[in-house]
Amino acid sequence: MTTFVYDVTMTCSGCSGAVTRVLTKLQGVDKFDVSLETQKVTVESATLSQDEILAVIQKTGKAAKVAA
Amino acid sequence: MTTFVYDVTMTCSGCSGAVTRVLTKLQGVDKFDVSLETQKVTVESATLSQDEILAVIQKTGKAAKVAA
Repeated sequence: MTTFVYDVTMTCSGCSGAVTRVLTKLQGVDKFDVSLETQKVTVESATLSQDEILAVIQKTGKAAKVAA
Repeated sequence: MTTFVYDVTMTCSGCSGAVTRVLTKLQGVDKFDVSLETQKVTVESATLSQDEILAVIQKTGKAAKVAA
């Protein structure tokens, strides 16, 4: 299991809810957390790569990058 | 050229900005309008189908459907 952390710009609960919905639907995600307060998205997966998850998050149209 | 109209739940400018970004990147879109006020997204395309565009809008994680 690997944990990946992303910085994602989310400005309201509609934004964080949208990210939550796409991660809920994404096969291979074992656990995730979306924080509107910290603007961080944490994803645990045994099968997906960091870039595969980033690509799905970016499809939401939010500015997203791997957290430093 | 066909014009398609969708109802999309957007609650802040971050939400509408996200939809704007994905439509800007979508090949085959000739013109579009995203309205936070009316919760409508209007897309003009000569090549994409109603369902193809809907699928891309839904990838943002927003609740979206073809407008009645």
